[in-house]
Amino acid sequence: MAKKDITAGLTVKKEDDMPEWYSQVVLKSELAEYSTVKGCMIIRPYGYAIWQKIMDYFNKRLEKLEVSNAYFPMFIPESFFKKEAEHAKGFSPEVAWIQNKDEDKKERLALRPTSETIIYDSYSRWIRSWRDLPLRMNQWCNIVRWEVSDVKLFLRSREFLWQEGHCVYETKKECDKETLMILDEYRKLAENLLAVPVLTGKKTDKEKFAGALYTTTIEAFMPDGKAIQLGTSHNLGQGFGKAFGIKYRGKDEKYNTPWQNSWGFSTRLIGALVMLHSDDKGLVLPPSIAPTQVVIVPILFDKTKQKVMKKAKELKSKLKAFSVKLDDRDEYSPGWKFNEWELKGIPVRIEIGPKDIENKQVVLVRRDNGEKQAVKITQVNKKVKDILDNMQKSLFKKAKKFLDENILPANNWNEFISIIKARKIAKANFCGEVGCENHIKDKTVGATSRCIDVEKKGKCIHCEKESKFLVYFSKNY
Amino acid sequence: MAKKDITAGLTVKKEDDMPEWYSQVVLKSELAEYSTVKGCMIIRPYGYAIWQKIMDYFNKRLEKLEVSNAYFPMFIPESFFKKEAEHAKGFSPEVAWIQNKDEDKKERLALRPTSETIIYDSYSRWIRSWRDLPLRMNQWCNIVRWEVSDVKLFLRSREFLWQEGHCVYETKKECDKETLMILDEYRKLAENLLAVPVLTGKKTDKEKFAGALYTTTIEAFMPDGKAIQLGTSHNLGQGFGKAFGIKYRGKDEKYNTPWQNSWGFSTRLIGALVMLHSDDKGLVLPPSIAPTQVVIVPILFDKTKQKVMKKAKELKSKLKAFSVKLDDRDEYSPGWKFNEWELKGIPVRIEIGPKDIENKQVVLVRRDNGEKQAVKITQVNKKVKDILDNMQKSLFKKAKKFLDENILPANNWNEFISIIKARKIAKANFCGEVGCENHIKDKTVGATSRCIDVEKKGKCIHCEKESKFLVYFSKNY
Repeated sequence: MAKKDITAGLTVKKEDDMPEWYSQVVLKSELAEYSTVKGCMIIRPYGYAIWQKIMDYFNKRLEKLEVSNAYFPMFIPESFFKKEAEHAKGFSPEVAWIQNKDEDKKERLALRPTSETIIYDSYSRWIRSWRDLPLRMNQWCNIVRWEVSDVKLFLRSREFLWQEGHCVYETKKECDKETLMILDEYRKLAENLLAVPVLTGKKTDKEKFAGALYTTTIEAFMPDGKAIQLGTSHNLGQGFGKAFGIKYRGKDEKYNTPWQNSWGFSTRLIGALVMLHSDDKGLVLPPSIAPTQVVIVPILFDKTKQKVMKKAKELKSKLKAFSVKLDDRDEYSPGWKFNEWELKGIPVRIEIGPKDIENKQVVLVRRDNGEKQAVKITQVNKKVKDILDNMQKSLFKKAKKFLDENILPANNWNEFISIIKARKIAKANFCGEVGCENHIKDKTVGATSRCIDVEKKGKCIHCEKESKFLVYFSKNY
Repeated sequence: MAKKDITAGLTVKKEDDMPEWYSQVVLKSELAEYSTVKGCMIIRPYGYAIWQKIMDYFNKRLEKLEVSNAYFPMFIPESFFKKEAEHAKGFSPEVAWIQNKDEDKKERLALRPTSETIIYDSYSRWIRSWRDLPLRMNQWCNIVRWEVSDVKLFLRSREFLWQEGHCVYETKKECDKETLMILDEYRKLAENLLAVPVLTGKKTDKEKFAGALYTTTIEAFMPDGKAIQLGTSHNLGQGFGKAFGIKYRGKDEKYNTPWQNSWGFSTRLIGALVMLHSDDKGLVLPPSIAPTQVVIVPILFDKTKQKVMKKAKELKSKLKAFSVKLDDRDEYSPGWKFNEWELKGIPVRIEIGPKDIENKQVVLVRRDNGEKQAVKITQVNKKVKDILDNMQKSLFKKAKKFLDENILPANNWNEFISIIKARKIAKANFCGEVGCENHIKDKTVGATSRCIDVEKKGKCIHCEKESKFLVYFSKNY
């Protein structure tokens, strides 16, 4: 019986060496691969199928929210960058440049690290009147940030895929409202589709987007004790509008600068999904996002092969409500197939052999807890649906419990330090000052704020000055 | 009544100044816009919605054909390019480079002008055994070719969007078969979805893809007497396989170099679609590709407004089988709306006013020929379907007639010259030599071969040596 090297199973345990385990899960389940090109990754078909499901889900939401997709150039002239000073300062270390080859124009062009500037140049021509507002646009594209050379698959690479929404409103009120509405869409995507529970809230000044009035974020917590930012929605205020000369004539016939927001999530979502749910057998995919929800593995013996294959095909055609794969390969044994599909995280495996047919039953095996049950063929549709529903809920519940248990209140600096050292999330009073947060980061070797829970007066955990907020702190990706 | 500048209608006629007319149609229907960044364009939501429909259609076809989507880095190391000599030579004038900022590696990186080399580097690791074949993959991505500085919207720009398929087979026979199968998929996409009739066939040696064994193409003919290449499917032979060390162990336990093909179409399809069907009132979209197929314009008077709006909404909810927009804007007159939706190429307009309601009817107006008919409300679903079906067929038929009438046989060099001067397609015997085709191009100020119709012995139209093929020649985009 031939074996592919790639499916030889994981050689480390999740709790023993999380980074190596994670890398093996992603590589061996064939979600993605390291590229020969330094700092880059390849999204393989299985990984891209997950991204496609995320895109399909979110495109439907965008349609509801009256956000249209468009596509803007990936090249951004250096002069555009410089128009919004904070933005330029924030992004310039990460920008990759190409030299414009035209002789008549020597300006450098950036490969987009984010598209506010190139898009708002167009908005300054498209927006004339209150009738043009709200303007709601999104693009799906590749992004280049030259920050790192060590790739963490899906989590950190010089090129990645994302969506970026860019909306324009007449008033701050509308802009605030929809900035938070998008944040809630992100929360629902993470929690309902990916079974990844998140903290939501505003970022502190230190952590906000370069050029924003304020940034809101969804943050998940990983089993290695590090948080990960999974999506941000920024109220950009009027800064970009002023820098790019965007003006609209109001109902009052006066010219005003509009309010803008921008918001994005990336293929990084897939990384969090994988790290949170998967186990020592490989990938575990929540049924809602699994490209294949059910795999049928027929148990074939020479004598009964034809009969079993016929039943297996019938079974597949019965399960139309789900995405089902029938593994009819001759050259692999059932046991080998079980391992492969476990490694690939298919939520439900159905085994069907000659004895099962005699008993008019099949055997269902659930991926996350290994539960096995014999089920009458007449009941199989209902049972599969139950298992998928339960598994989706159970993965979320388990992850939510993990998140909740890892949040600990820090009432003083010593407690704060020991929570951070234990790789948990400290919930603490914080003054909100950038300088103070820099000190906290230095003294804790890397703990930064995740987001603001609520506004609350008290005494800052670090500087002991009057605090403004209750804030989540932890190590992060 | 307020008016936006942009919808002021076209100021030139298609037959008077085609390039200016085309640019106005694209700009004023808001499909796309020129970018401030030289050589680049912006695909606006209306244009992107058409691209999305093309992607959705083709993704369904890819699924049927068992081709999976993936995503590879946009950066290609210079050394990869150089591995296949013809390929490197063919593409190097168009390549934009970034300087790798890492100190330990000074190699330049190209922004992909096409992805054969970066993808086949991965294939050399992924392919081991006959079990891994056929391998069929596709990616949707942006492409950079620094060839031009004058943008022709959708037709020519330094960055554009496309799909590129890359498949690997055990045998030449399989590879030939699927290369042609994809070409036929492209033909169906152009003809059935976009109502754009095409010539199909092999390219001559001069026009084939750099590094291919042979190239097949679909070519459409535009009203200005120029052909346009809309999709190509290449049999790459074993050249890339050898250059990248791709080998598989066959059933005979021997190591062999596999056969490969690659194939692509781009957003250029939208340009051809627009130029072929549109008219002096603006865009004309075939119903199959129109993001909005039907627009309802209620005729509103103060007294009857509520009643008419109610009926218009009922009508919309009745027309669920189509994509329908109800234009309920208060600030524009019906006449203004008619013009706008004609400019935007909506296939069917439904007018509904108080008199129509009295008569239990609506008025349907078909975009391409302006036909108007009063239709009983009970009949409206059926009539709309008929009109859409007829319009789709009629646009194709008209375009097919135009293509057929513009193909003329050239029996000698004088005839050839006069056909080319008349901006038509000459069908002529051709020897197939690159040198001879270069001479033809020079002597005719730009006529090149479109594709080979059939193999046929005869006397070459230009060099008068023995000819191999009957070939289509014309000016082109």
